[in-house]
Amino acid sequence: MKVTILGCGVVGSSWAVVFARAGNDVLIHDPQTASAEAALDFVRKTDAEAAKRCSIAPDLETALKGADYVQESAPERLPIKQALYRQIDALLGPATVVASSTSGLPASAFTEGLTHGARYLVAHPINPPHLIPLVELIPAPWTSPETLAFVGDLMRSLGQSPITLAREINGFVVNRLQSALLGEAFRLVEDGICSPTDVDLAISEGLGLRWCFLGPFATIDLNAAQGIKEYCQNLGPMYFGLAQEQADPREWSPDLVARIEADMRALVPLSDLPSRRYWRDGFLAELVRAKRAIAEGLNT
Amino acid sequence: MKVTILGCGVVGSSWAVVFARAGNDVLIHDPQTASAEAALDFVRKTDAEAAKRCSIAPDLETALKGADYVQESAPERLPIKQALYRQIDALLGPATVVASSTSGLPASAFTEGLTHGARYLVAHPINPPHLIPLVELIPAPWTSPETLAFVGDLMRSLGQSPITLAREINGFVVNRLQSALLGEAFRLVEDGICSPTDVDLAISEGLGLRWCFLGPFATIDLNAAQGIKEYCQNLGPMYFGLAQEQADPREWSPDLVARIEADMRALVPLSDLPSRRYWRDGFLAELVRAKRAIAEGLNT
Repeated sequence: MKVTILGCGVVGSSWAVVFARAGNDVLIHDPQTASAEAALDFVRKTDAEAAKRCSIAPDLETALKGADYVQESAPERLPIKQALYRQIDALLGPATVVASSTSGLPASAFTEGLTHGARYLVAHPINPPHLIPLVELIPAPWTSPETLAFVGDLMRSLGQSPITLAREINGFVVNRLQSALLGEAFRLVEDGICSPTDVDLAISEGLGLRWCFLGPFATIDLNAAQGIKEYCQNLGPMYFGLAQEQADPREWSPDLVARIEADMRALVPLSDLPSRRYWRDGFLAELVRAKRAIAEGLNT
Repeated sequence: MKVTILGCGVVGSSWAVVFARAGNDVLIHDPQTASAEAALDFVRKTDAEAAKRCSIAPDLETALKGADYVQESAPERLPIKQALYRQIDALLGPATVVASSTSGLPASAFTEGLTHGARYLVAHPINPPHLIPLVELIPAPWTSPETLAFVGDLMRSLGQSPITLAREINGFVVNRLQSALLGEAFRLVEDGICSPTDVDLAISEGLGLRWCFLGPFATIDLNAAQGIKEYCQNLGPMYFGLAQEQADPREWSPDLVARIEADMRALVPLSDLPSRRYWRDGFLAELVRAKRAIAEGLNT
């Protein structure tokens, strides 16, 4: 398949790896040629074999020509997306599908009124997509079911794990789930219940170990003899009580953020953040490999 | 150290493994002798070497005599705990510390007015503790700082990861965090945004991969060039908007639970739940090993 990467920041560069390592021909384009070159460099360093299938397109017209699929990862500013999609719309071939990596803008906000609306949608990865499989697909009201099905199949062919939302919603699914957890995390620290580091441990040495291979529903399904129905009967009232206490939206005050930041900086100084990110990506890569090996080992 | 396990269900049996494999002498007691024998059997199957340090105490008095530490995992019913702690209080040696595994009852509800209140607290594990390191320590208002420090050190000596709450709070920390995530998960399904299976994938193939080794704060700290402060400046307003939408506590209706249950049963039939739990525990054991190996490999 012929795939085009538009926009070559961290997300676009990682997407280039995803498409090229699965055997697709990848054209990379960014208005800043240096960014496109940096992305190609990133692919070379990450997967030299895959990089042989990547090349740089000098302009948008060349980038789109003959493309089956376009993954757009331009900056997260609405006017930029709107202008870009107007350009894309004028150049688009008869069957090309275009997905945006945006984490916050619904496709309806930048594809309304365009000619090829049925072939635009959001395909939001968790960064970086070459390490984390989850991709959420969010249709605009005018995205066709065929487009959604095509992108779902494409993502699975790449080894990604797509989920499909029925409609646009603020934060999509991933950031809504993260928001719920972060809201309580900030509240626990603000209320003096425990330290930021202890909240992090509650997840990384506790709940996160299950959530790394079982979702929240599958987790509780295993925590009652007769499964999730019994679990909800027994604990539903307790959780409803907690939900009422947690219906308490708060802004993250500068003071609170400063307290949490102090804990974070004690663990990782500001100057070490780049190397810590490199460490995280290495950890993620090994973790995903280990997860697969464990799943295969237990199934045999 | 001499450790006593009171109550021999799933939690107590797993605790016996935790204490015995770390080299402690473990006395096991349950009013039902068959339960104590089943617990000893569980230790034998899990760690035969550790089981050599375990024995069964025929009655509560023998169980408590000379114990340095007691981990109580009796049934989660307040009158049972209250009666048990009155018995314990009458028999307790001059330095023994007693921690309850309760996931929902604060220690103040069953230790008020007793003689040795300073040496009672909650030490709530995530099930099963021999596989998941996190333990939350929750003091009653009368628990002494020395008791808290002693149990924290003891847990670390066992290879567990203790966190300490400043005071009693409904759901403690772990279930409050789980409640926040579950609340949004149920809401997304109820509102028809996506299927239960897709919510699970959003975590198990997405956010959960990071949360398995980075807590929620450490995760976002790495997601902005200048760390968590910049992240909160950029995205705080977006998350506050989501938090306001999520301040919408709902009971889990039987209809909603039935829909989710249908998805779960399609993946794992009811009759397969016991073997699925065995699979989960095997997965957890391998995952914790893999996490340690990855951390060590990346640090060298």
